[in-house]
Amino acid sequence: MGKNAVSMAVVRRLPRYYRYLGELLNNDVARVSSKDLSEKMGLTASQIRQDFNCFGGFGQQGYGYNVELLHNEIGNILGLNEVKNCILVGAGNLGRALGNHINFKRRGFKLVGIFDVSENIVGKSIGGIVVQHVDEMEHLLQDVKVEMAILTAPKEETIDIVDRLIACGVHGFWNFSNMDIQREGVYFENVHLGDSLMTLCYSMSNDHHD
Amino acid sequence: MGKNAVSMAVVRRLPRYYRYLGELLNNDVARVSSKDLSEKMGLTASQIRQDFNCFGGFGQQGYGYNVELLHNEIGNILGLNEVKNCILVGAGNLGRALGNHINFKRRGFKLVGIFDVSENIVGKSIGGIVVQHVDEMEHLLQDVKVEMAILTAPKEETIDIVDRLIACGVHGFWNFSNMDIQREGVYFENVHLGDSLMTLCYSMSNDHHD
Repeated sequence: MGKNAVSMAVVRRLPRYYRYLGELLNNDVARVSSKDLSEKMGLTASQIRQDFNCFGGFGQQGYGYNVELLHNEIGNILGLNEVKNCILVGAGNLGRALGNHINFKRRGFKLVGIFDVSENIVGKSIGGIVVQHVDEMEHLLQDVKVEMAILTAPKEETIDIVDRLIACGVHGFWNFSNMDIQREGVYFENVHLGDSLMTLCYSMSNDHHD
Repeated sequence: MGKNAVSMAVVRRLPRYYRYLGELLNNDVARVSSKDLSEKMGLTASQIRQDFNCFGGFGQQGYGYNVELLHNEIGNILGLNEVKNCILVGAGNLGRALGNHINFKRRGFKLVGIFDVSENIVGKSIGGIVVQHVDEMEHLLQDVKVEMAILTAPKEETIDIVDRLIACGVHGFWNFSNMDIQREGVYFENVHLGDSLMTLCYSMSNDHHD
């Protein structure tokens, strides 16, 4: 799509815009100015216009953006309309929390398999999907094109799982292993919940106001 | 501590620096240059020097930073050495995952209570702490100074819980309710896992290389 110049700092704001615009839509708001959006989101209006200009500007017409059009355009840029199959590997507490509570389809993914090694978990159902043994992973991936995997298995098993899945064509990982993983041509979204906790600790310790 | 000019963008990189330096320490690395650190972290060396200058620069002496000193200094800036009591409200899958797997003490907090409404969960132990009924929250907070609460209860109960806890002196929240909450003089670290998932979707859809 020729957006190779867009920095990840801008990209990481797109989901927030998408969420806020979705809330406006739910409240039947038809138009929004960059000023209103900026107040709601705690960004400057010029930051928002700069961000949007990275994607062609979305044609604000003096009296603001059309909320529904902007929501759809940002959704399309995020790729949410091209749903990609994903699997979840590791059905402990965190895996079950994600499997049960994340609305994958609204975020561009469809959960098509859940895997674990524990006899207590294999065969049980999470979010309507029966958990299979990790040894069955390759069987599923032969039959179904799976592009992304969610890594919620123990840290020490994660690298082996990643290598097996890349060999099967998986090229994106939502990684909760608390390790930064990198592989050529594969996307890792490494989630470090502890970083978020330390940021809160900083704010509370330093009485920092943004 | 007079760091009111430090932007949240810089602050959010501090936990990453802290993690990387911790890994170097574990590997018995005594000194690191901003160039080495930048390659490991995917930032420019000048970005790192700029970030560190916000806190006085940490005295690099030509041949690099002392890893242990820098790790300690960043930990102190983050406030990790002043441990604050926290409670967890909502012991479903996500609450149990956080209660069992997050090393709070390494992130500046001590978990001193877990609360839920479900009869099936109250009385059970999570990470060595017995879950109490949410109605008991105020009792604990009368006896123990609690500064932060982790919000993993259902969305519709969250606002009520927040108001009750602020009335008891809680002034920080690690908020997993998927709502952006703001209150005067109170810190909210609002975690939106869906935003992270949409960012991954963007990268996979746009074949974007940073």
